Amino acid sequence: MAKEGADMTEETQYMIDRNAGKEGVSVESPSNAKEMRAVVLAGFGGLNKLRVTKKAMPEPQNGEVKIRVKACGLNFLDLMVRQGNIDNPPKTPLVPGFECCGIVESVGENTQGFEIGDRVMAFMNYNAWAEVVCTPVDFVYKMPDEMMFAEAAAFSLNFVAAYMMLFEVAKLREGMSVLVHSAGGAVGQAVAQLCSTVPNITVFGIASCFKHASIKDSVTHLFDRNTDYIQEIKKISPDGVDIVLDCLCGENTGKSLSLLKPLGTYILYGASNMVTGETKSFFSFAKSWWQVEKVNPIKLYEENKVIAGFSLLNLLFKQGRCSLVKSVMDKLLSLYEQKKIRPLVDSLWALEEVKEAMQRIHDRGNIGKLILDVEKSPTPLMANDSTETSEAGEEEEEPEGDNDSKERMPFIH
Amino acid sequence: MAKEGADMTEETQYMIDRNAGKEGVSVESPSNAKEMRAVVLAGFGGLNKLRVTKKAMPEPQNGEVKIRVKACGLNFLDLMVRQGNIDNPPKTPLVPGFECCGIVESVGENTQGFEIGDRVMAFMNYNAWAEVVCTPVDFVYKMPDEMMFAEAAAFSLNFVAAYMMLFEVAKLREGMSVLVHSAGGAVGQAVAQLCSTVPNITVFGIASCFKHASIKDSVTHLFDRNTDYIQEIKKISPDGVDIVLDCLCGENTGKSLSLLKPLGTYILYGASNMVTGETKSFFSFAKSWWQVEKVNPIKLYEENKVIAGFSLLNLLFKQGRCSLVKSVMDKLLSLYEQKKIRPLVDSLWALEEVKEAMQRIHDRGNIGKLILDVEKSPTPLMANDSTETSEAGEEEEEPEGDNDSKERMPFIH
Repeated sequence: MAKEGADMTEETQYMIDRNAGKEGVSVESPSNAKEMRAVVLAGFGGLNKLRVTKKAMPEPQNGEVKIRVKACGLNFLDLMVRQGNIDNPPKTPLVPGFECCGIVESVGENTQGFEIGDRVMAFMNYNAWAEVVCTPVDFVYKMPDEMMFAEAAAFSLNFVAAYMMLFEVAKLREGMSVLVHSAGGAVGQAVAQLCSTVPNITVFGIASCFKHASIKDSVTHLFDRNTDYIQEIKKISPDGVDIVLDCLCGENTGKSLSLLKPLGTYILYGASNMVTGETKSFFSFAKSWWQVEKVNPIKLYEENKVIAGFSLLNLLFKQGRCSLVKSVMDKLLSLYEQKKIRPLVDSLWALEEVKEAMQRIHDRGNIGKLILDVEKSPTPLMANDSTETSEAGEEEEEPEGDNDSKERMPFIH
Repeated sequence: MAKEGADMTEETQYMIDRNAGKEGVSVESPSNAKEMRAVVLAGFGGLNKLRVTKKAMPEPQNGEVKIRVKACGLNFLDLMVRQGNIDNPPKTPLVPGFECCGIVESVGENTQGFEIGDRVMAFMNYNAWAEVVCTPVDFVYKMPDEMMFAEAAAFSLNFVAAYMMLFEVAKLREGMSVLVHSAGGAVGQAVAQLCSTVPNITVFGIASCFKHASIKDSVTHLFDRNTDYIQEIKKISPDGVDIVLDCLCGENTGKSLSLLKPLGTYILYGASNMVTGETKSFFSFAKSWWQVEKVNPIKLYEENKVIAGFSLLNLLFKQGRCSLVKSVMDKLLSLYEQKKIRPLVDSLWALEEVKEAMQRIHDRGNIGKLILDVEKSPTPLMANDSTETSEAGEEEEEPEGDNDSKERMPFIH
């Protein structure tokens, strides 16, 4: 992967600029090209650190596949990476992005299980937001025939994380109750769908008010983030809940722990409260870190509680649990083929629109997943004409008749 | 239960004295007696706070059974109670003890499921160390016909705790590895036996050297408490272990957490390192409490680890999970009847010998469970004659030919 992050001197940097957006898609894309487009983070900081640049075309090594990328997933973690707001941040410049999907364009030596032309989705340890990626087959999965690329880019990280938290860490069983913060986010919606595959699960969701109309059918009880939802939940379920899924961390942690039933499991799977503004404030980072209520194991003993942390990316890329994740992916694809789960896509963005997409996720404006559509042209945001046509072709369900909206339109509602 | 702890004025107190031991069993035991013998803790502190006294005979209330006790379990927690070294200690004087077994002597009104003459074992919220107890049926379980009373008193707390930790909290599965501190204790031995019911489980046990010969066959790898067992285990299993069961707390906690595999579960089920001497030192208690490494949830997130606390007594008596425990007990009794598990009894002691028994568990001299045998006569410890005959009759396997030992002999080895 280092091969992609190298050689900035050869790169032609494009400022991401709405007016210059068209230049971004004018690059030829045949497989004999020497260069490809990618989003590059020049240094940690604000949105202005992001550029679309040309980079040397990667070639697959031993055991790797080369994928012509169709779509990439954008996650809250990408914001934290941009700010350098993570443990042991990598060196910049780097290409962000942890998941993508596309078509296998070539395979390296000793690469088994994949052929040219296979439609695949992949986890990446960075470097996903590019026209072409190379990655070991351990992190690559074949897409079902009926799955669109926009869905595939929204599928891997959120559904695998949701599944493993509910069934591997917490062992969801019939009759249990689950509290999910950020119920309108992509993980929250994956959690809600997976809960519906088990009989008699009560899902308490927390989300901003404006999302309630869209997601109210996906959970049992929905609460506004700004209300005293802890008290509301206690009214409905005085005994508490069996599982709490928290991606916020911070002051919610203590409150959420108090909501746990005996033998209940609290799972922290993110720390998005650490992102307080566009740029990293070391003070706010440190403050959040220390504000997190540390847990005395003896208190857990007295209260019979379980507290867990879950990071799928660490599990994959630091802890080598590829085969476990593969087995989970197999179960999830089976559920997808049975039409029991389906990723909820919020909106599609061109690579050149990554800033606006990041701002949307920062403002928690999304309902479901934000997707970078590699073949899409950037859309002048204020335009009233219908330039928001996609080049993703068959993979995209373009909402019809709404292209005159000044707001980016949701992909699937 | 308050009815038993009352009225100290009517009690005749016997100092537990080896030479006066015989007085303890001279009390008549017919069912029309107005009094019964019990161990009483006069106040929190050292061994001298324990006495055997006569107390008013309890009578069963609504939904309760009255049990003529045959044997009681002695647990490390009883030492912590004696020292007042627990959260929210109850008022003294009190009758200690959390588990016993015996024969149903009468039943209260609206008491269903039990009849006079039933052989039963019971969890008690204190008050177990007595000739007669009354308790709600929620905490009472019928003994299998083939189970001896000494086994029953060693069964409930340790096997239920071990089972729930392995299968409810941590979800032990084929191929996993388990580290158990205090492998020679009653919970440790229950853990080892339950692990053997699942294919291909590696059990790492920590125990004092002198116990190794006795318990080496019960675990896969055995380490001396005083060696650097963390390093030894890492040599055998560089990846770590899936489950750590820790009843010690203190500095072991951090070390044990470092041994956990990703997605592994650390379970604290006791805090016996808080007991540092015969009497409670508030300073050492507070020191231990604060020395326990508190856990930052964000660290758990990065490392994909799970930390849990487990207290069976809180689960039963504060958190009302009787029916869950009942279902676990059913599974355990089935395993017992299939001869897959069998409690390991260290030794039997008369009520009047509770001090010596407590000293033995304090010194970690036991291998398996210490039992208070209610019908047993106290034995002069230094005597060479064979006064160590039991009145428990059919329920006891008295080790033959070893009564001339100056040390208390193990019950089952």
